[in-house]
Amino acid sequence: MSQKHTLIQTRLHHQARKFSYHVELLQMPNGAQGEYAYIQHPGAAIAVPVANTGEFILVKQYRFPIGKYLLEFPAGTLETGEDHGDTMRRELEEETGYSARTWDYLGAFYICPGYSNEVIHAYLARDLHKLDAPPPQDADEDIEVVAMTRQQMHHLITQPNGVMTLDAKSVTSFYLALAVLDQN
Amino acid sequence: MSQKHTLIQTRLHHQARKFSYHVELLQMPNGAQGEYAYIQHPGAAIAVPVANTGEFILVKQYRFPIGKYLLEFPAGTLETGEDHGDTMRRELEEETGYSARTWDYLGAFYICPGYSNEVIHAYLARDLHKLDAPPPQDADEDIEVVAMTRQQMHHLITQPNGVMTLDAKSVTSFYLALAVLDQN
Repeated sequence: MSQKHTLIQTRLHHQARKFSYHVELLQMPNGAQGEYAYIQHPGAAIAVPVANTGEFILVKQYRFPIGKYLLEFPAGTLETGEDHGDTMRRELEEETGYSARTWDYLGAFYICPGYSNEVIHAYLARDLHKLDAPPPQDADEDIEVVAMTRQQMHHLITQPNGVMTLDAKSVTSFYLALAVLDQN
Repeated sequence: MSQKHTLIQTRLHHQARKFSYHVELLQMPNGAQGEYAYIQHPGAAIAVPVANTGEFILVKQYRFPIGKYLLEFPAGTLETGEDHGDTMRRELEEETGYSARTWDYLGAFYICPGYSNEVIHAYLARDLHKLDAPPPQDADEDIEVVAMTRQQMHHLITQPNGVMTLDAKSVTSFYLALAVLDQN
């Protein structure tokens, strides 16, 4: 039995701004054949910025697919040929107005492997300083910076009523960051 | 300023098996106008099953968008009109061959709010017993059950080399489950 699927036919393709959508006829490693749809994504980077006070720096931003504002760690889609560390330094400055002197790579994870190949590279960003002249946000960004203590983060994540105001990439990165912070 | 975006025009729609893909001309709450693409998803449920030995029960399955096998907690897409608790009981039996007597709701989270409206409802499943005659898996599923200790889970999540063999919904749900397990 093969360890990979086989592409039989491409049926539809749409190029969006940051990713493309593909509908393909595939044969799976177990022999099943069918039409499968997914998003091809260039990958992304996320940073967990920790201020000298110990507070975590998040951004509150509008997410049109759900019609709501969510709290997330600053993140951005990789540009072609761009190193994920460079993406992250740029996005941290654009989205929060902070720059970081100390960066630790926390590893990477798949966010939604059922219908997207996006991989997210996570960083811990420390020794923050406020930029005098932060770079401008993208035209369609509408971002507010929010600082939260570790206890406030835990409370937001574990209170079981309703849908969390954080997203899964931020929760995953938070715990990856704690594993390093608690070692030091 | 409005708190919601406005739909100006629908440009493309594709119906996949478990979700639909939409390309729309939108006006964002901050006034920016543009073409945005996203997935409309019926939502999903995930369970963190804990055996009487304290081990976590995961499933190893093939994810065609990344061409790899990943370790994930059992999960499934909601069917129309289905309660997420019912989805989860069915999926746990189908994917692992276990049934659970004790269920705790852990809350819900958005997995990928930049381009999908999918919300995932998380459960802790305890008092597991092996079914004599587990229901059949879906035809294109190809699933192996794997048991891991808490220490093995931590190791898999926090070792920073390469891309994690777990996905973000499983890591997020693991920590939601620990918050309840550590209370008891």
